[in-house]
Amino acid sequence: MADAGQKSSEEETDRAIQPIGPGGPKARVLVAGATGYTGALAAELTWRHPDLELVAVTARSGAGTPLNRLYPRYEVPLELGELELSDLDRVEAAIVAYPHGASAPVVAEMRGRGLLVVDLSADFRLEDLPTYERFYGAHGAPDLLDGAVYGLPELNRDAVAAAELVANPGCYPTASILALTPLAREGLIEDVVIDAKSGVSGAGRDKGEATAFTTVTENVSAYTPVGHRHRPEIAEKLAGLSPAGREIESLTFVPHLVPLDQGELVSCYVSAGREVSQAELDHLYRESYGGEPFVTVTDFPPGMRDVRDTNRCHIQVLAGDDRIIVFAAIDNLWKGASGQAVQNLNLMLGLDEGAGLS
Amino acid sequence: MADAGQKSSEEETDRAIQPIGPGGPKARVLVAGATGYTGALAAELTWRHPDLELVAVTARSGAGTPLNRLYPRYEVPLELGELELSDLDRVEAAIVAYPHGASAPVVAEMRGRGLLVVDLSADFRLEDLPTYERFYGAHGAPDLLDGAVYGLPELNRDAVAAAELVANPGCYPTASILALTPLAREGLIEDVVIDAKSGVSGAGRDKGEATAFTTVTENVSAYTPVGHRHRPEIAEKLAGLSPAGREIESLTFVPHLVPLDQGELVSCYVSAGREVSQAELDHLYRESYGGEPFVTVTDFPPGMRDVRDTNRCHIQVLAGDDRIIVFAAIDNLWKGASGQAVQNLNLMLGLDEGAGLS
Amino acid sequence: MADAGQKSSEEETDRAIQPIGPGGPKARVLVAGATGYTGALAAELTWRHPDLELVAVTARSGAGTPLNRLYPRYEVPLELGELELSDLDRVEAAIVAYPHGASAPVVAEMRGRGLLVVDLSADFRLEDLPTYERFYGAHGAPDLLDGAVYGLPELNRDAVAAAELVANPGCYPTASILALTPLAREGLIEDVVIDAKSGVSGAGRDKGEATAFTTVTENVSAYTPVGHRHRPEIAEKLAGLSPAGREIESLTFVPHLVPLDQGELVSCYVSAGREVSQAELDHLYRESYGGEPFVTVTDFPPGMRDVRDTNRCHIQVLAGDDRIIVFAAIDNLWKGASGQAVQNLNLMLGLDEGAGLS
Amino acid sequence: MADAGQKSSEEETDRAIQPIGPGGPKARVLVAGATGYTGALAAELTWRHPDLELVAVTARSGAGTPLNRLYPRYEVPLELGELELSDLDRVEAAIVAYPHGASAPVVAEMRGRGLLVVDLSADFRLEDLPTYERFYGAHGAPDLLDGAVYGLPELNRDAVAAAELVANPGCYPTASILALTPLAREGLIEDVVIDAKSGVSGAGRDKGEATAFTTVTENVSAYTPVGHRHRPEIAEKLAGLSPAGREIESLTFVPHLVPLDQGELVSCYVSAGREVSQAELDHLYRESYGGEPFVTVTDFPPGMRDVRDTNRCHIQVLAGDDRIIVFAAIDNLWKGASGQAVQNLNLMLGLDEGAGLS
Repeated sequence: MADAGQKSSEEETDRAIQPIGPGGPKARVLVAGATGYTGALAAELTWRHPDLELVAVTARSGAGTPLNRLYPRYEVPLELGELELSDLDRVEAAIVAYPHGASAPVVAEMRGRGLLVVDLSADFRLEDLPTYERFYGAHGAPDLLDGAVYGLPELNRDAVAAAELVANPGCYPTASILALTPLAREGLIEDVVIDAKSGVSGAGRDKGEATAFTTVTENVSAYTPVGHRHRPEIAEKLAGLSPAGREIESLTFVPHLVPLDQGELVSCYVSAGREVSQAELDHLYRESYGGEPFVTVTDFPPGMRDVRDTNRCHIQVLAGDDRIIVFAAIDNLWKGASGQAVQNLNLMLGLDEGAGLS
Repeated sequence: MADAGQKSSEEETDRAIQPIGPGGPKARVLVAGATGYTGALAAELTWRHPDLELVAVTARSGAGTPLNRLYPRYEVPLELGELELSDLDRVEAAIVAYPHGASAPVVAEMRGRGLLVVDLSADFRLEDLPTYERFYGAHGAPDLLDGAVYGLPELNRDAVAAAELVANPGCYPTASILALTPLAREGLIEDVVIDAKSGVSGAGRDKGEATAFTTVTENVSAYTPVGHRHRPEIAEKLAGLSPAGREIESLTFVPHLVPLDQGELVSCYVSAGREVSQAELDHLYRESYGGEPFVTVTDFPPGMRDVRDTNRCHIQVLAGDDRIIVFAAIDNLWKGASGQAVQNLNLMLGLDEGAGLS
Repeated sequence: MADAGQKSSEEETDRAIQPIGPGGPKARVLVAGATGYTGALAAELTWRHPDLELVAVTARSGAGTPLNRLYPRYEVPLELGELELSDLDRVEAAIVAYPHGASAPVVAEMRGRGLLVVDLSADFRLEDLPTYERFYGAHGAPDLLDGAVYGLPELNRDAVAAAELVANPGCYPTASILALTPLAREGLIEDVVIDAKSGVSGAGRDKGEATAFTTVTENVSAYTPVGHRHRPEIAEKLAGLSPAGREIESLTFVPHLVPLDQGELVSCYVSAGREVSQAELDHLYRESYGGEPFVTVTDFPPGMRDVRDTNRCHIQVLAGDDRIIVFAAIDNLWKGASGQAVQNLNLMLGLDEGAGLS
Repeated sequence: MADAGQKSSEEETDRAIQPIGPGGPKARVLVAGATGYTGALAAELTWRHPDLELVAVTARSGAGTPLNRLYPRYEVPLELGELELSDLDRVEAAIVAYPHGASAPVVAEMRGRGLLVVDLSADFRLEDLPTYERFYGAHGAPDLLDGAVYGLPELNRDAVAAAELVANPGCYPTASILALTPLAREGLIEDVVIDAKSGVSGAGRDKGEATAFTTVTENVSAYTPVGHRHRPEIAEKLAGLSPAGREIESLTFVPHLVPLDQGELVSCYVSAGREVSQAELDHLYRESYGGEPFVTVTDFPPGMRDVRDTNRCHIQVLAGDDRIIVFAAIDNLWKGASGQAVQNLNLMLGLDEGAGLS
């Protein structure tokens, strides 16, 4: 992952960012892969955004269908089209919602033309290429990895603001890392179990029987209990936060599917290796998140509904009998994907971080 | 908890059990506290049972209402009445579904008249009286504690069969103990996190805003994350299974409410203190549950729906990257309460253990 | 549709029915098309049935998969196989759950070998061939139409009992016709609007985005508001019940999808052409359904949940301000499909009508 | 109901409306009865509104609780207080969400002090006092009835803009009248059946067992099938739209409860007394709603989800086989209550009609 200093001066001068800003001309944006849940919401948020202009929505199928026909609850009247190179010359920025693996070459094309890119896929999230390849297969644009910034503004706001390619975090990593960052920075995570629950939209669109109503309703079960792709992402980022000599020894991550559409809750159970009081925990989390516009530390267990259709993350931390317990609730499609993508794009464009997100 | 040998010969001779059995006369049963979810289901299961006769359903309110009016999906046409002492002389057995604390005196009255009793409350679940009193308040019939048997047939079938008072386990303890027993017996639980999810019926009837549809739907959140009453029950029973010198050092239990009616899943994350292979786990669970009529060990994550409206428990055990992972799914109203109550009563009456439960 | 008298004496002598009956040998049954919701439930009900033996479950795909693996909540351990002619020689009866159009040739093959058949498709429901062809296309076995009996026992129990081929009614027709029969027989339906609501399982398995969880949850909408295939079925059967000169002038049928799995409610709004009192309505419905084992006339609006997982139909009739209002609730998979199929098969085999259905 | 001309000149000069408007100072607003679902949403919408300032939220219980604590998904940080007369001097307008009957005296007090009022109760909806009293009991402020305007802007936008007291329509009347207005105005409704479906929030907060999760989930049933209070409201307004000599002869209205939180669908079945083509229907609805900001005429059956959390109404009209079919979907809490209240208040204050509603 790059920090701002790694960008060449040439790129700097190419940046389309200068004239943008509140009250200025709108930044022109393309959303690629707009038929899926996260792409469609990214398009909708861009459409409603006061400082962005949604120029085109593209998809690999469904060309000619207006997006508000595919999703009647959305307003975007633009017709889906195939991604044309000519589109790329009409915009300053793109949000890409392609499947893992398919995204990298498209992003490379966009970056080659100087676009600012927020990529919703996993292709640029992991710093460690072998780990990527073990979980996702061959990488389509490994050269870009170095310049990509992991787009969790609460962790690295300045790097995002200076970035030209942002890898938008996975939904589970977003919630898990926000839940655990204050502990990780203090070296207070010796061992952690993350039991995660996600609404069905987290699985993506068109998954057949696995996400059919009759399969999911009145049901809860774990899935991919061993080897889920979000585990290495969480582990890598938390490792990067931990002080030397206080590495995390054990990290278990198990996701569950729950019968609702949008929402995600991670329940984190941490052994700190020493006694930690509630007062110390309160202090740590207040320090970390006191000024954050989208993170609220609560004194009651956060519910998925409390943050639905918002870019907010609600966190509670508790000194349990034997372990520290941390809950974090987000909307998997908003803070876990498209809302955070807009938050990142706002920062990259020098806009107010929360523009278009309230 | 008593084993069979502790019963006096006098009690033995009073037992109404002799003439009962498949094909024999039906055992006459009263269900006390039949307006709540577990009491009503216990009544319904008794009503449909080939070898039981439901003689009376009682409740502290709602007298005069037929049970199938209060719950149109049930068949029991009997009217709810107040519990009269004369009722107790007409039956051989009772299932009691009173609130914690309110149950003990009623059970004492029933036991004084020689009835076999399955008590769904917590009043006789804990062997340790101080622990009971810390979580539930003063105990109304401490003298009976010694003779009560913890009614988890998969653990202590013979004791249940010989018992006259059975304390039906809590729903979370049922799933958790079934999930962990094979590990506990081998001393393989050094540290365990139990993340539990329950459908709304587990909260009981008539709980106001907390269980209103608009509160629960599209929502998941933890509740009572520290100090839930089922934690000491789980801890006591697992401690009783563990070999000397291999006590559980840390047990975290956190329940969550999920938006469905009936169903419960516990996800257990165990540190064994040593490497344990999948083959060893498979062997352990096969040994424990190979012959159990109501427990199935699966090779896929069990779902709540798979066991809905049944007395079954589905369990999967996995050697995870860092921990052993065990999932157990039950229907909280069936195996977690009323189904298990009938299973226990079947054993106490010398009937087929599964009678009336398929 | 045939009545019993139309069957030839030759067919009579071939009937496998003689040795069957409660306490006798079990009737051997095959379920064809067992991967869909109705076929799977028909198999499960047959498996649990005290007087039936489930010999084979077949499907056009998925061969080799045990049915209780495809549906973990079911018990049937038999593996799905392709339908072989040799299977047909091993059974006395079959329940066929093939798609409309695909069913007729299979049924013809079975009938040619003397099997009793209950067909869950629409292929033999309509007496009027041109109507069938307008809604479903060419008919694969029109010769069998004459001998088929419409399998709504509450209407024509004797004909079903004597039939060798029963056309199991559609789910909406089952509820609608049960709701309206007492009025139709009296010529009290001048004009009727049927607003129907169905759970998602009514749409069948594997319907893609239309029945995806994220499409259906938090949603209600009509579908096929004009021209639904069940309208002619309802119209034909009600017309057959109406006295001469009192034909139904107008019949509107509109189905809606509601966010639950199993359940169906039809709300029927009837203009009678004359004043009808509540007392007259009560009398009519009591007369029609007083002795019916599976129909209950209620004095409160029936709910889908009241009849879930049962073969029951709950009906309320009301003299409204301007119209007669009739509600009927069934479980679309049970009384609306597979439960009724077993009810029909029980009658055809001379068994107790409710065997295996409680 | 008054039209603008009926207001006295004295009242006119008192109007606080002059200085308000986009870009001007914000209008100060109080929301009374903010603990219920509609009051809380009205407060939230006011809080987020660019041209309104939420000055106080009051309730008859819960004083001292911040609204965003009672509803964690809302942002309003104001604490609930009892309604004090001094509050009324600090605001120009009020939205009142009191129960029927309790509202009238509070509204009278507010009107006496010159406040603009939008009343969410039924107290000022009906022009006919005897009808009101038959359904709701004695009226607390009958003198105000004459000056009240029925707040359905699509029907009487100018009257709303000139009103000082607006009676916000019921949720069912909103959807039903929007669905049927184009037909009523043409005298095309001879007979109509309205089958309505509502999410659970429509029942209001804190209704006990009737709206408990376990009662409502997996269930659909009618309620108050005869004599629902919204029927006379619908009938009165449609009668007012119908040309002389073309009165509606029969109007049946039956509401159903469906298992979701927010959403409402009315399915209307109309006999026109003559043949009406789809082309004529399309023309009528396009004429009526072509320029309406919140009404969309669709060519597919509208779903509740399509309009969730919006002030929109989606309508489809179809020439059915025997009847005209009209569907209208709204969010019962938005267009059916609080969103429409803000729409009305916007008009009364001279603001953009859609301000704060997108």
